[in-house]
Amino acid sequence: MKDHVYRITDLVGSSETSIDDAIRKAIAKASRTVRHLRWFEVVETRGMIEDGQVAYFQVTLKVGFQVEDDKPGS
Amino acid sequence: MKDHVYRITDLVGSSETSIDDAIRKAIAKASRTVRHLRWFEVVETRGMIEDGQVAYFQVTLKVGFQVEDDKPGS
Amino acid sequence: MKDHVYRITDLVGSSETSIDDAIRKAIAKASRTVRHLRWFEVVETRGMIEDGQVAYFQVTLKVGFQVEDDKPGS
Amino acid sequence: MKDHVYRITDLVGSSETSIDDAIRKAIAKASRTVRHLRWFEVVETRGMIEDGQVAYFQVTLKVGFQVEDDKPGS
Amino acid sequence: MKDHVYRITDLVGSSETSIDDAIRKAIAKASRTVRHLRWFEVVETRGMIEDGQVAYFQVTLKVGFQVEDDKPGS
Amino acid sequence: MKDHVYRITDLVGSSETSIDDAIRKAIAKASRTVRHLRWFEVVETRGMIEDGQVAYFQVTLKVGFQVEDDKPGS
Amino acid sequence: MKDHVYRITDLVGSSETSIDDAIRKAIAKASRTVRHLRWFEVVETRGMIEDGQVAYFQVTLKVGFQVEDDKPGS
Amino acid sequence: MKDHVYRITDLVGSSETSIDDAIRKAIAKASRTVRHLRWFEVVETRGMIEDGQVAYFQVTLKVGFQVEDDKPGS
Amino acid sequence: MKDHVYRITDLVGSSETSIDDAIRKAIAKASRTVRHLRWFEVVETRGMIEDGQVAYFQVTLKVGFQVEDDKPGS
Amino acid sequence: MKDHVYRITDLVGSSETSIDDAIRKAIAKASRTVRHLRWFEVVETRGMIEDGQVAYFQVTLKVGFQVEDDKPGS
Amino acid sequence: MKDHVYRITDLVGSSETSIDDAIRKAIAKASRTVRHLRWFEVVETRGMIEDGQVAYFQVTLKVGFQVEDDKPGS
Amino acid sequence: MKDHVYRITDLVGSSETSIDDAIRKAIAKASRTVRHLRWFEVVETRGMIEDGQVAYFQVTLKVGFQVEDDKPGS
Repeated sequence: MKDHVYRITDLVGSSETSIDDAIRKAIAKASRTVRHLRWFEVVETRGMIEDGQVAYFQVTLKVGFQVEDDKPGS
Repeated sequence: MKDHVYRITDLVGSSETSIDDAIRKAIAKASRTVRHLRWFEVVETRGMIEDGQVAYFQVTLKVGFQVEDDKPGS
Repeated sequence: MKDHVYRITDLVGSSETSIDDAIRKAIAKASRTVRHLRWFEVVETRGMIEDGQVAYFQVTLKVGFQVEDDKPGS
Repeated sequence: MKDHVYRITDLVGSSETSIDDAIRKAIAKASRTVRHLRWFEVVETRGMIEDGQVAYFQVTLKVGFQVEDDKPGS
Repeated sequence: MKDHVYRITDLVGSSETSIDDAIRKAIAKASRTVRHLRWFEVVETRGMIEDGQVAYFQVTLKVGFQVEDDKPGS
Repeated sequence: MKDHVYRITDLVGSSETSIDDAIRKAIAKASRTVRHLRWFEVVETRGMIEDGQVAYFQVTLKVGFQVEDDKPGS
Repeated sequence: MKDHVYRITDLVGSSETSIDDAIRKAIAKASRTVRHLRWFEVVETRGMIEDGQVAYFQVTLKVGFQVEDDKPGS
Repeated sequence: MKDHVYRITDLVGSSETSIDDAIRKAIAKASRTVRHLRWFEVVETRGMIEDGQVAYFQVTLKVGFQVEDDKPGS
Repeated sequence: MKDHVYRITDLVGSSETSIDDAIRKAIAKASRTVRHLRWFEVVETRGMIEDGQVAYFQVTLKVGFQVEDDKPGS
Repeated sequence: MKDHVYRITDLVGSSETSIDDAIRKAIAKASRTVRHLRWFEVVETRGMIEDGQVAYFQVTLKVGFQVEDDKPGS
Repeated sequence: MKDHVYRITDLVGSSETSIDDAIRKAIAKASRTVRHLRWFEVVETRGMIEDGQVAYFQVTLKVGFQVEDDKPGS
Repeated sequence: MKDHVYRITDLVGSSETSIDDAIRKAIAKASRTVRHLRWFEVVETRGMIEDGQVAYFQVTLKVGFQVEDDKPGS
């Protein structure tokens, strides 16, 4: 990481299955529009409840990506 | 959520299996005594260790539920 | 816990599989060098991204262990 | 406050008009089911957006109320 | 704690004598209306001043109690 | 929110009139360049003072917006 | 702000009308005894409840003021 | 507290005896130079160790005092 | 700042020389792709260690920039 | 403290008597295995409840100790 | 520090050169009007940007000073 | 970092010269007794004042180091 400048964006992903899956989905979708994703940090874990059961998990992530030299970042 | 007032209660659930399962168990059990649960937020993830292994995971949740108009909430 | 003094150490573990597995691995490995581990608390959940996918999850834990009366702790 | 024990409950109220109004509505509605409300603290101010405008404000409050000697609190 | 779900309530107690006494009083009074109290955490220590002296100490506690299977918690 | 990924951006808005107005202005202006704004959270409330009076209020918001499938977000 | 040193003082103001008014009142009153007030930050928003209604709002502010070169600040 | 503006100052007091005593000493000494002290909040509890024993406790307090109308506060 | 809306982006910069230099490098590089940068706040200071020495410093900044009226921000 | 490097360890101590006593016990016991303890900071105050009474107080401390030049610290 | 009561004041200093210099300038200037300054803590590091470069660094400090027995502190 | 478990220790270093130097000194000294230091994070920046000038800077660091497979860490 020595020679680069990074930017960090906040993402929210969700999953009916698990917290891990909510993270994976958010990263996978973001990678379609932002290049050079490098790391993430979970800043919030929430979820919605329906009929007395967890309907889905929802995670908020900080995601770091490398700023390219010749063009604007996301 | 525009027309309602909600209350938030703090719950602790646990599971030998996973963090996700500890969340599901806490929500399911709370739904037997508190109606109209709507969302949760994970505020702490802990666990106990026995014989050098994770014995169980323990999560503390904030859980929001809708206050009914004609009777007291939980 | 009434009669003991405990010390707390910070650990970082990782796993390509899941957050739960990263926690289990860190505890299992620490138990090989520190005795009498009793509880843990997750203080940070992060991860690395490669090719637009989660490469591995990385958790930071506070882990409490009992101080023995006759010899130094870790 | 010298001679009493208080309990604190968390409430969420909302208003299309203002933050102040969201607070007033949450307090007024809670006072119908919990007696002896004494003070509040704003712990979160959020809101929903529709068509590029604030649809409503939503405040989370901690509300303290006096525990009566002869019967359970809320 | 493995097999139970707990709820957490926030209490405020006070004492002219000491912080410890304010904690003891809040717990003792709460135990008259909430059963199965298990642990507490001090989240705030305050007090009032009169005539240039501490008039009383006031502590805010989070108190965990076990949810019974067959009836609603507090 | 079940099927979408969201991004969060931080905004600062100001108003000579009120905190509510500073929030409304920031949202309204942002909606001209970022589509599909969904919610906000107030993270800081500040202001400037001139001649011993509040000159203007200034709020920092986190604003969530939906990531579209076929094109980059803001 | 480049050439000055500032000090920050904490103020508490209140109003029966609104949060905005509580801020304005605290600033206006402080400006009678402290000169060169420059900015404020809201650090806590609370209030008192009477008869199930908001009796008054109470805000805690950090207020920055310029230290004069030739005499002590507040 | 409805009709007044308050200022808050930070104090550090210490005692070889107890945390309570460190608080009482700080309040008592401050009351000799600042009038109209009204409340305090403990923001940090520390201490020094000598020869493997607690040498003294040291508490940091926020202390609120009423601003008089006709003269500057502390 | 009265008449503008600002956005805030998170940046990570690094330097083998000093914390100050890491900040300067991050700002200078960001200014090549984002216009109208106005202020920054340091939110994290970290670094990497090699051979028992600081290899480089790494700072995370929040950087505020003015949103232009006629075109999207970064 | 000018010429030394210190390390900080986290300790948990408990007492049936008081918070002060729990601190003293943790420091006294730690001093048997770690030399050159210099200061402590209370980071958490908790306790267990039995039969509706405080069974014991439990404090978590950060404790600083001087690193000796010629041998490893604790 | 055993026998004294201290007060803490918040200062903001700035420098075009470095963070260290901003701290030194704030301390040096404060020492002209407040006596017996003893320690400081950095609570915020910010700065202003002009023409895509750091214009100046700005630090907020908590500064502790000893209260004299025979006269009011600052 | 994929295949290792790390431990984190807290260090305090100081320097009369600069914050950067205090960090470097703490790392350099720690590396004499703890092997495989990998990264650090600054968690507190303080200092002592003498004669109205900064006497020395003092930084508290979290320092991560790799746990070796065949022997205990520090």
